[in-house]
Amino acid sequence: MKTLLLIGIGAGNPDYVTMQAVKALNKVDVFFVLDKGEAKDDLVKLRTTICERFITDHAYRIVEAASPVRDAGTPDYKSGVRSWHDEKAAIFSRLIATELKDGEVGGILVWGDPSLYDSTIRVIQQIVAEGKIAFDYEVIPGITSVQALAAQHKIALNAIGEPVHITTGRKLLEGLPQGVDTAVVMLDNGSGLRALADEDVEIYWGAYLGTPDEVLASGKLADQVAEIERMRAEERARKGWIMDTYLLRRTPRQ
Amino acid sequence: MKTLLLIGIGAGNPDYVTMQAVKALNKVDVFFVLDKGEAKDDLVKLRTTICERFITDHAYRIVEAASPVRDAGTPDYKSGVRSWHDEKAAIFSRLIATELKDGEVGGILVWGDPSLYDSTIRVIQQIVAEGKIAFDYEVIPGITSVQALAAQHKIALNAIGEPVHITTGRKLLEGLPQGVDTAVVMLDNGSGLRALADEDVEIYWGAYLGTPDEVLASGKLADQVAEIERMRAEERARKGWIMDTYLLRRTPRQ
Ligand SMILES: C[S@@+](CC[C@H](N)C(=O)[O-])C[C@H]1O[C@@H](n2cnc3c(N)ncnc32)[C@H](O)[C@@H]1O
Ligand SMILES: C[S@@+](CC[C@H](N)C(=O)[O-])C[C@H]1O[C@@H](n2cnc3c(N)ncnc32)[C@H](O)[C@@H]1O
Repeated sequence: MKTLLLIGIGAGNPDYVTMQAVKALNKVDVFFVLDKGEAKDDLVKLRTTICERFITDHAYRIVEAASPVRDAGTPDYKSGVRSWHDEKAAIFSRLIATELKDGEVGGILVWGDPSLYDSTIRVIQQIVAEGKIAFDYEVIPGITSVQALAAQHKIALNAIGEPVHITTGRKLLEGLPQGVDTAVVMLDNGSGLRALADEDVEIYWGAYLGTPDEVLASGKLADQVAEIERMRAEERARKGWIMDTYLLRRTPRQ
Repeated sequence: MKTLLLIGIGAGNPDYVTMQAVKALNKVDVFFVLDKGEAKDDLVKLRTTICERFITDHAYRIVEAASPVRDAGTPDYKSGVRSWHDEKAAIFSRLIATELKDGEVGGILVWGDPSLYDSTIRVIQQIVAEGKIAFDYEVIPGITSVQALAAQHKIALNAIGEPVHITTGRKLLEGLPQGVDTAVVMLDNGSGLRALADEDVEIYWGAYLGTPDEVLASGKLADQVAEIERMRAEERARKGWIMDTYLLRRTPRQ
């Protein structure tokens, strides 16, 4: 039997890696890497650092394949994502069939936690559903950017007894559901920052969380938004990409 | 200066502990433990296991204090929680003042992640706000029960491009906010399980996640609810307490 491990590596700090992930890393014979061919050198570097720092005494190989590019031009966002998943499934399916021998363990490193805004679980489930190749797989959780944000700002995500709503920049533009006063926003291209700027809202913002480039800001959204936009633009220009997450809270914190 | 580390230890499996938490554990001179005097032996055991397994070569002492009991009879839930926080703040304040020497590091182990339905950050912030004792503190994230649930069921929390709503059993009884089709439910005494039982909903349920007693169930809520209630009652009777978390998803998974 072949085994595949989907290993959450945490969202930035190599020390976010769990003991469970370290044990899993040390079982992997082949790492599958979908190379995005982007300038996100730091993301590649984190993966390398983690393998070098935490894999002791176990030989492994790395198999790279070009990552399909999501067609951002498709009018329907979800169908665009789905055909991107199909392409990834075809690639991983081929890799598992041809690059992983019986009895071997394959590994896929996932940024943050595999359960949060990441396609890997869905893609692997799709291959399983197709039923053409036999393998087992396991999911190993990792620290998300949401938790990194809360830890660095030293805040609780929830107000007492209240829900936590995790959403995307795209969704935030439609407004928050009624009864939701706390939202964590991910995958925002910057346009979500002003969605609630007219309301009495606090923001806790973080970019490149857990990394040496980490930037934090917090306060009244109305007071902070221009400065956050400025930092966002500046960091983006400097590094070529940005990853940021923020928490918005409508009522004053309790 | 005194330093306090609030260390997330993950929600059940000792191997959920991160490298960052291991490093933090190895800096702690005094662990502060609020003893709940309950039958939750396993919870105490996890803390002991983690300290014994991961603290190498650093002497530490443990200071225990009786935990205040939240008055569940208070008509207003939130004010009940707040006065419970006040009592905890008074206790930790005294412990930091009297049991932690200048230059020493105190540690509080927090189940799961300190940012999710846990009072520790709020209590420490309250002590800081009172301004009577000087100390620094840091928060170290940990794997939540939400992530353990997703990993064990091998599911993504979010549907493609959709939000994730984390809520309590109490809140679920008021219904889900409009536009929310996925909810993770925590802190439920069992009454939330039937809140959406008349709708077309899938459930992914887990108790004692990450521990040797872990129990999982999944499927159509209507088909599973009676069996989950039965297992809940049985496990509860057997162990004297239960900790469970579940994800409800309204539309079929995509
Ligand atoms: C495709 S999602 C992946 C999320 C990841 N699975 C997790 O658990 O955090 C990418 C988004 O996560 C957030 N993100 C990931 N890492 C981050 C970091 N180190 N700092 C700030 N935001 C981050 C950003 O909102 C980014 O747009
Ligand atoms: C006071 S909250 C603490 C949550 C914790 N900070 C975390 O990050 O998971 C306690 C609730 O967490 C959930 N929980 C914690 N550990 C769990 C476990 N091992 N299995 C199932 N549910 C768990 C249950 O819903 C329980 O009612």
